Amino acid sequence: MNILIIGAAGMIGQKLTKRLCSHGKLDGAAITQLTLVDAVAPIAPTCDSIIISTQVRDLCAPSVATSLVSLRPDVIFHLAAIVSGEAELDMRKGYQINLDGTRYLLEAIRDEHELDGYCPKLIFTSSIAVYGAPFDNTISDDFHLTPLTSYGTQKAMCELLLADYNRRGIVHGIGLRLPTICVRPGKPNAAASGFFSGIVREPINGQSAVLPVVDTVRHWFASPRTAIDFLEHATTLNPDQIGPRCNMNLPGLCASVAEQIESLRNVIGGDAVARIHREPDDQIASIVAGWPEQFDATRAIALGFRAEQSFDDIIKVYLEDDWQKR
Amino acid sequence: MNILIIGAAGMIGQKLTKRLCSHGKLDGAAITQLTLVDAVAPIAPTCDSIIISTQVRDLCAPSVATSLVSLRPDVIFHLAAIVSGEAELDMRKGYQINLDGTRYLLEAIRDEHELDGYCPKLIFTSSIAVYGAPFDNTISDDFHLTPLTSYGTQKAMCELLLADYNRRGIVHGIGLRLPTICVRPGKPNAAASGFFSGIVREPINGQSAVLPVVDTVRHWFASPRTAIDFLEHATTLNPDQIGPRCNMNLPGLCASVAEQIESLRNVIGGDAVARIHREPDDQIASIVAGWPEQFDATRAIALGFRAEQSFDDIIKVYLEDDWQKR
Repeated sequence: MNILIIGAAGMIGQKLTKRLCSHGKLDGAAITQLTLVDAVAPIAPTCDSIIISTQVRDLCAPSVATSLVSLRPDVIFHLAAIVSGEAELDMRKGYQINLDGTRYLLEAIRDEHELDGYCPKLIFTSSIAVYGAPFDNTISDDFHLTPLTSYGTQKAMCELLLADYNRRGIVHGIGLRLPTICVRPGKPNAAASGFFSGIVREPINGQSAVLPVVDTVRHWFASPRTAIDFLEHATTLNPDQIGPRCNMNLPGLCASVAEQIESLRNVIGGDAVARIHREPDDQIASIVAGWPEQFDATRAIALGFRAEQSFDDIIKVYLEDDWQKR
Repeated sequence: MNILIIGAAGMIGQKLTKRLCSHGKLDGAAITQLTLVDAVAPIAPTCDSIIISTQVRDLCAPSVATSLVSLRPDVIFHLAAIVSGEAELDMRKGYQINLDGTRYLLEAIRDEHELDGYCPKLIFTSSIAVYGAPFDNTISDDFHLTPLTSYGTQKAMCELLLADYNRRGIVHGIGLRLPTICVRPGKPNAAASGFFSGIVREPINGQSAVLPVVDTVRHWFASPRTAIDFLEHATTLNPDQIGPRCNMNLPGLCASVAEQIESLRNVIGGDAVARIHREPDDQIASIVAGWPEQFDATRAIALGFRAEQSFDDIIKVYLEDDWQKR
């Protein structure tokens, strides 16, 4: 099996690469070839059984997608995007990378499809940012797409494109609306959502963390490990199972900040909790108030997707997968 | 007031042009300048009070939108699109005209906006094709966008773009999901939906008409006159009334084919009804089965949009506006 990962240098891309190299197979077939692509140099792990190549490429030029698809990957993971904050600040760049990049990829697949029926599996990482407030308490798959950011708009437009190409049989596509990934490894960042990981990660690492919102705030989480499980599992689904509505909410854990803190106390201890400093920030609080809290992922669960059941488990995944490896 | 109509040569574009020339004003202001643009030559009515110019232009070239927006219209009606059947047959052309054309227009507006805050009203004609079966019995504004045609996909993508540009304050946009326009004047066409108009129009004109579906089929209608009312009324709404969810279902009349036929009997007579020949067509029946029947347009009604209350009225509009003028 020949696999292409676009956006391979990001946190999810790196973890997916490691997982694929560790398993050596995907959807029951041995992986023979793995191409890692990103705008910055992806790191290729050593792996005897798989031919791994890396490319530093920018998907904004249509010829790049043509060249990548000419490798005839059986499965394409399309993870590349600029993040919400950057897409909001630089409108042109956001549409170029997050919309045009995906469109060029689909068009390149169509060109190959028209030659001989080539039809790869395409796993696209979408986002819960396709939804915008006001929300129902629980957001179901059939809630309308009313993003309130350019990033969410671009993801929603890509979902529509993917569904049209999927319906036409050009690609076996699936769009996964990932929960907020928590605990993100690495350093704190400036994202408004950063504190959800920070209030866990920093105290575990003996550092102080700022909590800018009240602890009744709820959000929708899955661990990085679960995100990789989602990507792997998506490749095992056949088109009949997915049908024309190929974009879906994934399961996650709805937890309040108070529940996050209680889990930190349970798993690590009171000393860690004491490193969290409450510094209310109205701007962050108002951004977070526009975010969804909980989803009905009945359909994805019926398709076999699984997420954590408690925030304790999410912290344990961080300890096992990322903390020890610092 | 300076007005631009893109897609001015189509049925709706022509009727809108006539209405604007007849009223001489829009949203309370005198119309001074009217620019009619289409890929085929628009017909400019004579009108003493308005400077009317016509342009034969193809919106697929980005420079065309730049040139049109440099005229600094206060209101832009963007009606241009290739129809569902053509967009399905020619995927590339559909995305070029129905998606890229709209995007170039919005980007051209953004370029002018960045110069000095220019922010026109943009009335965009969307379609109930943004929805795809399976449906709820009645489709509300918050039903998800799952189009089952490339045309519907393109309209849904444009709605998302419009909402993002609207949210950013670059344009005062509103997307109107028009009901099926009935009775369409003119000759029968090959569209699967053509019979909804044909079984009324042809018998009125003394010709026979084919009914390819059972008469329990229901659909969602508004007259051409009502469609023009919608477009005019949309220009009177201010941004605060519209808010970030700027795309909406419009009111219409839910009528069965049997009710259409009864109205034909009421308004015209039994001789006209006798000209309808039932010739079941499984292919058309299956296409029509994937179409929505009824919408909840509570929001648009609250905003002052109004449609016909009976199919008798829809037939009378045809008699008044189109039939006598043959």
